[in-house]
This record gives sequence, structure tokens and C-alpha cells, in this order.
Amino acid sequence: MPKIDPWGSSSISNYQHVFSEFGLSQFPESMRKQLKHRFFQRNIVIAHRDFEKVLQRIKSRKRFINITGIASSGQYHLGHKADIDLFKFFKSQGAINYFCVCDLDAYASRPKIKTLQDAKEIAVQNAADALALGLGERDIYVQSNKEKEYYCFAFELGKKITASTFEAIYGHLDLGKVSANLLQYADILHGQLPSYSGKMPSITGIGLDQDPHARAVRDLAKRLPCNLEVPSFIYFRHQSGLKEGSKMSSSEPDTAIFLNDSEADVKRKIANCFTGGRNTAEEQRKLGGKPEICKKYEIDLFHLESDAKLRDIFEKCKSGERLCGECKQLTAAYLSKFLKQHQAKAKKSMPKAKKIVFG
Amino acid sequence: MPKIDPWGSSSISNYQHVFSEFGLSQFPESMRKQLKHRFFQRNIVIAHRDFEKVLQRIKSRKRFINITGIASSGQYHLGHKADIDLFKFFKSQGAINYFCVCDLDAYASRPKIKTLQDAKEIAVQNAADALALGLGERDIYVQSNKEKEYYCFAFELGKKITASTFEAIYGHLDLGKVSANLLQYADILHGQLPSYSGKMPSITGIGLDQDPHARAVRDLAKRLPCNLEVPSFIYFRHQSGLKEGSKMSSSEPDTAIFLNDSEADVKRKIANCFTGGRNTAEEQRKLGGKPEICKKYEIDLFHLESDAKLRDIFEKCKSGERLCGECKQLTAAYLSKFLKQHQAKAKKSMPKAKKIVFG
Repeated sequence: MPKIDPWGSSSISNYQHVFSEFGLSQFPESMRKQLKHRFFQRNIVIAHRDFEKVLQRIKSRKRFINITGIASSGQYHLGHKADIDLFKFFKSQGAINYFCVCDLDAYASRPKIKTLQDAKEIAVQNAADALALGLGERDIYVQSNKEKEYYCFAFELGKKITASTFEAIYGHLDLGKVSANLLQYADILHGQLPSYSGKMPSITGIGLDQDPHARAVRDLAKRLPCNLEVPSFIYFRHQSGLKEGSKMSSSEPDTAIFLNDSEADVKRKIANCFTGGRNTAEEQRKLGGKPEICKKYEIDLFHLESDAKLRDIFEKCKSGERLCGECKQLTAAYLSKFLKQHQAKAKKSMPKAKKIVFG
Repeated sequence: MPKIDPWGSSSISNYQHVFSEFGLSQFPESMRKQLKHRFFQRNIVIAHRDFEKVLQRIKSRKRFINITGIASSGQYHLGHKADIDLFKFFKSQGAINYFCVCDLDAYASRPKIKTLQDAKEIAVQNAADALALGLGERDIYVQSNKEKEYYCFAFELGKKITASTFEAIYGHLDLGKVSANLLQYADILHGQLPSYSGKMPSITGIGLDQDPHARAVRDLAKRLPCNLEVPSFIYFRHQSGLKEGSKMSSSEPDTAIFLNDSEADVKRKIANCFTGGRNTAEEQRKLGGKPEICKKYEIDLFHLESDAKLRDIFEKCKSGERLCGECKQLTAAYLSKFLKQHQAKAKKSMPKAKKIVFG
């Protein structure tokens, strides 16, 4: 049996074509060693654009901007928790923090959100989750409750991008989505304006599928008259849904574990998720499981903090010592425990969340 | 000699094709009689969309919204004074006033304005002029210094208009101009939001060439979830430049009288303007002049408040009693006197204007 790494680095080879196609740099081992977080140790962060600038700031204890946004289109799930965990890591490294709850963007670009008021109500839930996950009140902002400089900046950006560039990048020209994108560009860049934190490197963690946004905003930063640092990005490996070939999706609740799921939800979803297990228990004991393609193991890889426990899960699976049913119970148990505590914290955070959204 | 009206109503026949093509209603005599302002008496307002609603509010002494905006792309000229004079008339009729100094719009849509700061500096001059022309501090706002609800509303509107609609209306799809238009729609409509003045009829005076904007925003008002009154519009007849066939243009200063022009500027511009005068003084004395095509007479028609004086200018021109040179001196004199007083008021208004723009 070939040596397989429980941190899944082998699967990064799947992304080589993406790197070369889009000019992304593979996240190097030398940087990985300097960043004490499971996302770096476990090869969950696989690529970057200009991360050197940010690493330099961390090492020299200088400030940098930590900016991430999540659209308020529904309840947060574990994929969003991963975004926030990464955000918290950069916060711990001395960043100036801008966590954006994107209600205006979600409303402008998504037909399912009928009014801005609906988006704001989702935003309250989202902000409560972000607070419960460990962000501070001052780390979070909501697009619909910002300073006038921010909105003016978003409108300014419209002058610097052409319709044909937009169509070339995104393949469409929906004016609601144009508005949403201008807001996203403003989110990434506004922290560098003089009335915010001033010019400095910034870091944003995104999925590979969001790279068109990253390229657009980096290009924009170079063309603005106000002299901004080109923002840096790091890229998560793909987070898949719980079913084979699925994506996590708010519109198909059983493809993801949501932060407001009950213990029963978690048990059911994990029990039904795709593991790639063998046809029979006997076969599994003999050949071992396939954590590399197991959706439950992906959750462990992203969210189980203990390296020792993760290694134990991996090894007992590969060796055939522990079968999928037992393994699922173990993951469902720690997730349920985490979610129960999280939900209590989120409930307590509601007054602060309302203040963030409604002022 | 056929009877010709000094108020120029005969020239309205030139616009009949525009009315029928775009579905505009000619401004009726019955309404004209009820509105005591030279713009109505002299057929300067030639068409409307849904003005009945506003007239009804005026007659029943109910409030309505008076909203007009001018892009901060340069110094105001007499064309802008006409917009503000009409705005003042509706203010006197009991309106709730929203006069917009459009700095963000001007910056987003015009390549010649390089930074938002440049647009804001023009906005200070514009606001000072508006104050000097008789608007109050509370009647004026600047796009870059608004409440967050206004900006959010502008972004919301992006969801309700498609790129193809936009291209069909305007014949282009420049994202800076899209941003500028979303702001203009927000300007026209935001006064009706609950956090502003609430749902009610609104009136905006525009040039015929701006009708595509009017149609777009009226269409938008019908499709918004927030239930707004469809805004009403009235249309000025075309205000031409000082030279034959010219438009008033900030980039060609001698085509217009600017509110900051010196007495020497006014004298020179009026002396050089197109009058349609005859080849010789003798011929002019015999045949009379042509006020219908005279650019100076157009200024008198729009800006000379005294009906008696205007009639005198018209009759002495038509009869050949007064030649163009003397007639030009007369207009240059009253304009210079007006501008001198205006400029003193505008200078005094600068601190208030700065407060409006920079808060």
C-alpha cells in the first residue's frame, strides 16, 4: 500500500491544472511551516496570490488587513465556519479585521431574496453566528449599515471597470450582480482608504471558484487613482457536500451541516453521507476504507482540531479497524456537542448582532 | 405680418413629433393658467407626464416632492439657473424639497472628472450657487454626503433593471454610467421611502433629451416592491447655446453665460451671440429682427422676469425700432447686474455650501 498522508496533500495534484491555467501559486511548504493552524498544516489552503506580503507583515509584527465576506443568503454551514476559522487565525496574527456580512450584495444578486429587509434578517442570524464563533463586535460589519465613504467608493469603482471586462470575467452582465460585485470590490479594498486603516497589504481566504473575483479586484486596485496595495488571496481546497458529487447548498439542506442544525439533523445527515465504504463489512475490514473520498472525513479534516484524533480516525479507517457506522457516530457526536454550545452562544449574541445590523 | 406671440408658443409645433413619438403630453392651456410663473406663461414648459397628480396636490394644498438634480461637472450656467428657478417655483407651492448636487454621478460617468474629490470641490461651488439663487440649506443635498438608506436603495435598484433594458434605453452599457443612472433613479425616488417623506406624487423638471431617464425611472417605480407613486415630469423646451446651432456647454465657455462670469465675459459673449439680425441696419429697420431665432432673446424669454420689459424687447425688435447692438447692451446690462449680486451672495454662501458637501 502506498504511503498516504492523513492531511490529504496528495489530492492537491488534482489542482495543478487550475494553478497553471489561472496563474495561481501553489502554497509552498516553506510558508506552511510558519503558520500554526490546521488549515496550513493539513494542506487545506492550497494556493495563493501574493501571500508573501502578508507573511512578511506577520513576521515583522506589522498590521495588515484581514477581510472576508459571506453573502447573507441563508444560515451559515460548516463551509462558512471554515472561512471564519481562517479569519480568526489572521486576527490572532495581529490583523485589522473586517468581517463583512453581505446583505446588500445577497439581496441585489439573488432572486430568492425578495426584499432588503429579508436580507437584513438573515444578516442578524449570520452576525450572531460570527460572534458565537469568536469574532468581536468591532470585527464585523454589515453592508447595509456602513459609512457613506464606503458606498461612494463602491460607486467610484463602477467607473474603473468596463462592461466588456465584466462579461469577460463573469460570462454574464446582470446589473444586480454588477452591483453586488462592486460592493464586494469595495469590501476587499475600502479598509485601505485613508478614512479607514490606510494603505497596507490585505488577506482574504476564498474558494478556488471565486478566483475571477480576486483577479478582477486585484486588477482594479492597480488602476485606481488612490494608490492601494494589491490585495493578497489564499485559496481553500474545494469543500464538497455530504453526498457524492454534491456541493454544499442552502437550497438542499441535506448537503451541508448548518450551524443551527439539531442533534437529530446532524445524526441523520452524517448517517446518510457518502463515505466510499466497501460493499461489505468483511471487505472493509480486509481492504480498509477510503478517507480520501469520504465526505465525513472531509468534515474531520476541516473541523476536528486535534491532530492526534484526526490521525487516529484516518488510520483506523485505512486499516479497516473501524467501520463507517462507528466512525460516523464519533463525528456526529463531536459535531453535535460543538453545535449545541455554538447555538447557545449565538442565542446570547443576538442583541449584539441586531445592533451590528440595525445600528 | 402674421401675429406672432412674444412668448414663443408657435415654436412648440416643432416638438409635435417628439410628443407623439415618446408618448409625452403637450402641456395644456388649462394647466398653464393655474401656474403663476413665467415658465408656464411663456410656454417654456412644453410637455409633461402625469402632471395632473402634482397640480391636484398644489390645488388642495397637500405636500408633494420637488426633486431635481444637476451633475457637478462644472460651473452652473443660465441653463442650470432655469432648472433652479423652476425648482423654487414648486418650493413656493408647498413642496418638500430635494435639490441634488450630483457629485458622485458626475464623477462616475464623466472621464474628465478624475477623482471624487474634484467632483466634491465643484459640488461646493454648485451648492453655493444654489443657495445664492434662493434655495435653503435644508433644500439641498449632495450625493456623496447622504444617509446609508439612500445608497442601499441605489444598489437595490440595480436588481430591478436588466442590462438589456438599459442598453435599449440608453444605447450603451458603460458601468460608470450605469452607476450614475442608479444614483439618479435613487435621487428621484428615495424621497418617497418611509424613512424620508413617504409615498406621494413627485415632480421633476427636465429637458426633452432627458426623457429616456424619466421613462426608465417611471418604469422602475412600477416594479419596486416598496409601492411608490410613479414620479411626474415636466419638460423644458430646448435651451440652446449662444452661437447658431450650438448647445450650452461647459467645455466651450462662449456657448453659455456662467454664473461666475465677469461683466466683461457677459458683454463679450452677448456681443458675439447669434441674433439672426439682417445684413444691414437699414434692412433691419425696414423688416424688423427675428426674436424667434435670436439666442439673446431666448435668454430674455427664460430669465427676464418682467413681462412688460420682455414684450417691449420683442416689439421693438420686430418693428425694427431697436437694432441688435442696442438690444444686446440692454440684456448684457441686466445680466451683469444680476450676476454681480449673485456672485456676492454665492461668496457669502460658501461656508454653508462646504457644510452641505463635507458635513
